[in-house]
Amino acid sequence: MSILASKIDVAILGATGAVGQRFIQLLENHPWFRVGEVVASDRSAGKPYGEAARWVLAGSPPADVAAMTVLPLDAQLNSPIVLSALPSDVAKTLELELAARGHVVSSNTSSHRMAADVPLLLPDLNADHVALVEVQRRNRGWSSGALVTMTNCTSVALMVAFKPLLKYGIKQANVVSMQAVSGAGYPGVASLDILDNVVPYIGGEEDKLETEPRKVLGSFNGEAIDFLDTVISAACNRVPVLDSHLVCASVGFENVPSLEQIKADWLAYQGHELARDLPSMPDPVIAYSEVADRPQPRRDRDAGAGMTTTIGRLRECNLLDVKFVALSHNTIRGAAGGAILNAELLVSRGYVQGVHVGEAQVMG
Amino acid sequence: MSILASKIDVAILGATGAVGQRFIQLLENHPWFRVGEVVASDRSAGKPYGEAARWVLAGSPPADVAAMTVLPLDAQLNSPIVLSALPSDVAKTLELELAARGHVVSSNTSSHRMAADVPLLLPDLNADHVALVEVQRRNRGWSSGALVTMTNCTSVALMVAFKPLLKYGIKQANVVSMQAVSGAGYPGVASLDILDNVVPYIGGEEDKLETEPRKVLGSFNGEAIDFLDTVISAACNRVPVLDSHLVCASVGFENVPSLEQIKADWLAYQGHELARDLPSMPDPVIAYSEVADRPQPRRDRDAGAGMTTTIGRLRECNLLDVKFVALSHNTIRGAAGGAILNAELLVSRGYVQGVHVGEAQVMG
Amino acid sequence: MSILASKIDVAILGATGAVGQRFIQLLENHPWFRVGEVVASDRSAGKPYGEAARWVLAGSPPADVAAMTVLPLDAQLNSPIVLSALPSDVAKTLELELAARGHVVSSNTSSHRMAADVPLLLPDLNADHVALVEVQRRNRGWSSGALVTMTNCTSVALMVAFKPLLKYGIKQANVVSMQAVSGAGYPGVASLDILDNVVPYIGGEEDKLETEPRKVLGSFNGEAIDFLDTVISAACNRVPVLDSHLVCASVGFENVPSLEQIKADWLAYQGHELARDLPSMPDPVIAYSEVADRPQPRRDRDAGAGMTTTIGRLRECNLLDVKFVALSHNTIRGAAGGAILNAELLVSRGYVQGVHVGEAQVMG
Amino acid sequence: MSILASKIDVAILGATGAVGQRFIQLLENHPWFRVGEVVASDRSAGKPYGEAARWVLAGSPPADVAAMTVLPLDAQLNSPIVLSALPSDVAKTLELELAARGHVVSSNTSSHRMAADVPLLLPDLNADHVALVEVQRRNRGWSSGALVTMTNCTSVALMVAFKPLLKYGIKQANVVSMQAVSGAGYPGVASLDILDNVVPYIGGEEDKLETEPRKVLGSFNGEAIDFLDTVISAACNRVPVLDSHLVCASVGFENVPSLEQIKADWLAYQGHELARDLPSMPDPVIAYSEVADRPQPRRDRDAGAGMTTTIGRLRECNLLDVKFVALSHNTIRGAAGGAILNAELLVSRGYVQGVHVGEAQVMG
Repeated sequence: MSILASKIDVAILGATGAVGQRFIQLLENHPWFRVGEVVASDRSAGKPYGEAARWVLAGSPPADVAAMTVLPLDAQLNSPIVLSALPSDVAKTLELELAARGHVVSSNTSSHRMAADVPLLLPDLNADHVALVEVQRRNRGWSSGALVTMTNCTSVALMVAFKPLLKYGIKQANVVSMQAVSGAGYPGVASLDILDNVVPYIGGEEDKLETEPRKVLGSFNGEAIDFLDTVISAACNRVPVLDSHLVCASVGFENVPSLEQIKADWLAYQGHELARDLPSMPDPVIAYSEVADRPQPRRDRDAGAGMTTTIGRLRECNLLDVKFVALSHNTIRGAAGGAILNAELLVSRGYVQGVHVGEAQVMG
Repeated sequence: MSILASKIDVAILGATGAVGQRFIQLLENHPWFRVGEVVASDRSAGKPYGEAARWVLAGSPPADVAAMTVLPLDAQLNSPIVLSALPSDVAKTLELELAARGHVVSSNTSSHRMAADVPLLLPDLNADHVALVEVQRRNRGWSSGALVTMTNCTSVALMVAFKPLLKYGIKQANVVSMQAVSGAGYPGVASLDILDNVVPYIGGEEDKLETEPRKVLGSFNGEAIDFLDTVISAACNRVPVLDSHLVCASVGFENVPSLEQIKADWLAYQGHELARDLPSMPDPVIAYSEVADRPQPRRDRDAGAGMTTTIGRLRECNLLDVKFVALSHNTIRGAAGGAILNAELLVSRGYVQGVHVGEAQVMG
Repeated sequence: MSILASKIDVAILGATGAVGQRFIQLLENHPWFRVGEVVASDRSAGKPYGEAARWVLAGSPPADVAAMTVLPLDAQLNSPIVLSALPSDVAKTLELELAARGHVVSSNTSSHRMAADVPLLLPDLNADHVALVEVQRRNRGWSSGALVTMTNCTSVALMVAFKPLLKYGIKQANVVSMQAVSGAGYPGVASLDILDNVVPYIGGEEDKLETEPRKVLGSFNGEAIDFLDTVISAACNRVPVLDSHLVCASVGFENVPSLEQIKADWLAYQGHELARDLPSMPDPVIAYSEVADRPQPRRDRDAGAGMTTTIGRLRECNLLDVKFVALSHNTIRGAAGGAILNAELLVSRGYVQGVHVGEAQVMG
Repeated sequence: MSILASKIDVAILGATGAVGQRFIQLLENHPWFRVGEVVASDRSAGKPYGEAARWVLAGSPPADVAAMTVLPLDAQLNSPIVLSALPSDVAKTLELELAARGHVVSSNTSSHRMAADVPLLLPDLNADHVALVEVQRRNRGWSSGALVTMTNCTSVALMVAFKPLLKYGIKQANVVSMQAVSGAGYPGVASLDILDNVVPYIGGEEDKLETEPRKVLGSFNGEAIDFLDTVISAACNRVPVLDSHLVCASVGFENVPSLEQIKADWLAYQGHELARDLPSMPDPVIAYSEVADRPQPRRDRDAGAGMTTTIGRLRECNLLDVKFVALSHNTIRGAAGGAILNAELLVSRGYVQGVHVGEAQVMG
């Protein structure tokens, strides 16, 4: 991993929210990026970040960011890279405007995920999809700007588990999630709703979980993404857990592999070669736990600095072919960390204008 | 519902445990039964119940029971009815000995559930299975004794939801449970294991959930139970919830009913006619919630005094045919309340010797 | 307890909030009152209650109330009695206007608690303070209207514990509270703030806890309340508990009683004689637990239908004189149930015009 | 901080328990020590550690320790330093035997804390007390062995807060704790006891909290510890929090300092000079949070790698002089990390025979 001559400024949109805070936390010692601008709604704009943001993570915001003045949503930004954790209604137009103005936008928001010319990226799985940016620029008449998106946080563990098994033909899957409260942002889930309780519904989530993996795991044909032909049925639940989403999956294959083959494929998976040397690349991409009752949210979410997906309990299924449990950290791997990884990929592939980071340097 | 001339004495085995305490709580104002004897392990025997038991439910044990002396496991019991919440290793022989000595044993333990001549009862669903007691008595040479069993607590909600739909032919089901800590007894699940966590494994539970419904929902042919021909695939999880188990189910039918038909069947279900007038009969057997995010453990577990199963979120499934969420209280409907209902059925059907409760009277 | 010929209509202000819901739940089978009108902010007004309110308690709202149309805050109300769970800024003027228009307002809000001519009532402790209404009517020129207030929920357990001990002269007290999330209403405390956490600060709470007991435990001299001369020092904490507030108290007396005397005084306490026959009178007012680790929120909050205060762990203090732990249900005894009890007292003492309930009848 | 030529072997007693696991976790990259031997009860002895221990912390045990064979309690140990997390009944004799055999024992157990010739150490506060080892060796006829103890985990935050204020004369203090479940070890607190609950009693804890600070904050007169002359009154509560204990304290002084003086004293406190260069020395010893609702367990426990005490909410007290809230991590600062720091002090002061670590070297 290379160290750039000077770090690249990054603007954080929605900087005071829960994912915005994770962006700031994860960038504190980032080798390529530094927080250049913090942007939030009118309620916060004009105040020092440390005063505008009710910090909900452990500890305190970094002192340098705490001292920055929060910019309004319509500010002219100087940072070449924009990380967006905006609410989806605001993101809908603002992210496009910023890309049109030449910024490379790595968004964590759902607004543009399914647009045909917007890459939906998990670089460890589909780094090659980033080339869709060229189609996007052509379509939209953008020269230096771009918009790439991070997936829904819940589907990450599922997609990571599926990727090394695509060669067997994944026909169908049933997946039930148990999701952390941080997935709903802050203030998000009321304590009166979740203490001593489970809420068996999360608006819009099942649809995302059934749809997004087909794009992420699809293939880029040079012009567009050919979606993976598979059927996923999802049920999503909120549980009294702070961070990380757990999924119980059953999978049916065209060519059924043995349990041993599956484990071997998972353990051997190195991630997409274009992403391997990125600073935030999960290491390992997949961990497999042989402990009977793992993965567990609290004990496995921080594996690989919150970027590794942990799988366990692989076993035969008497309905489809196999069952397993998979877990990834929703606000790191499934949100802020993922969007940072996407931005790293854009830099590495030369999509950020004016950042002269030859591949040799970045990967040196 | 009739009131007996005098209440029937009931002995509680495993009286100091979590389910034993529920037995005592639920019998406090029972119209037919009263606690006659409390039985527990050597550690407790000889002490007043109020001192031997660390009461883990709300409030305190009833004063009269608190004053009873705990009997040892090998005591000669006087109560015609025995409710057993013994650990399964102890239950294995002791329940048979008590039945052989003439007691009618209603057990909540798993030891004998799958024995061919032991009824596995949910009276609202399969009250007619109780006649298997006659085969049992013949097989084992018991005159007045009997042994009937309550199902695993997790499968209850699933079986209740399935019963009114059996006419459509349930081919297959995928079920993922989120189970309360009280299902593991006391002390049971360590707080260090479950606060801010989910444990995606419960020993032996998935096997029970895949097997017991096939017996309960099977049909009694006069000599034995013909198991229901269906395939269930289960994944069981422990969540930080005190009471009640929630299941996310996907179901495939032979003749697929409409969502409206299914709801109508659920709402119309009155329970098995032989059970309808029993004091602990769930009322209603099934509640259906139209609220988008219900049923929820904390808000729905006490429906029908903890005996009603609440279902919600019925919707199409793109893998099997339909999906829904169902919930029942694990230590009331799924354990102590269920075993009491079983004992009521035995009384009502004349299987408890010396208790001259004609049907007219009981149902009067 | 008498049953009135017909029930008295009660209007609920702030009916969709957490305390508003408790009002509705507690009035479901109330012998004197019935919900006549439900009033809430513009966001809810005009909708059926069942649709406007996100019901956060167990089960569902009563069907008859669910069907009522929510009235706006400026509606002309027909109910002689108004129970208010308004936010304090709205309550500030609206409660006075309603009293001026002739309604008897029993408020759970803090806005007017410390006004010199507004009774701050816990009828089991200070039912005679209700006569301050006459001063109030004189001062404010109200003929039939009145305004009485319920105390802060946290101080209830402390005041109940103090009342029978006032004869020893309570010089000073140190009190640390552990308070349930329901005390902050709905949505109230964010789950991200309280799961696996304690928040050692609740805005304004310590001040209330140091001040209100001096008024409640003071004496009515015919014109005003002479405050109790005592010093209370408070520290308030939010803990991950759904309902009920626990306080750890240390108390210093002028004439130090023995631990036995204190217990005897608590157990003998019957509550103020003017309140003894009211339908919601706590029964008993005080329970004392001899179990070493009680009272506990989950296991003791529902004592006496949520109206009883449970005390335990009375012991010597090496700093002041004695220490103990006390607990009461914050949204029943400490809010909705308390305000209903206050309304009952107003009816019983003849302060509700047109409700011809002679004392004989009410108490008959 | 110096790096030794080779690391010193340390034996962990009670290695499979919750504190034992913390020892192993904290030693993973320790600059001076490495895990040399793991010792546990007969149930575990003879098995590989990775199999014998149910790992309750995040992640997994370090691979090298997981492969070690667990030794029985009566094994002959080779490690010069022994870290003990034994149950107090076992510790009572075994720790003395090990010291007699020449091991330097740093214990986290309560058994010997109050013995007159056993140092009760928090090196950042009373590193000079370590010289009591010389009295101990003389008394007990030990040449190279020694026994030092770590304090009760709850009193740590209190003692750290008191130390810089001793100059004002701390006359009296009232302290109420809210303690994490990990303080009770594993399995420890049952989830059925603590979910949605507080348990206002912890056996023996209040006594320790009232007593141990007087020894730790006392002064070593060359032969014994002169206890601090102060009166502490404690109430201890268990709350649904995983790690770290929070205390609400009120303090009365002989010479009352201003709030500003107190804050300044806290922020200026560098810790005892003999401890300043130890690898596990808290850095800083004290953090003061100006945020209105901090410190909070989940957000502040990991300050300074779990070794820093965070204080907040300093304010006037209308009963004593000032009030504040303080928090420290119970299984790091208050247990394993503390006992490691004690062992470091013993090495640094030359009490570990055969470890030729001149001060220059260690502190180089």
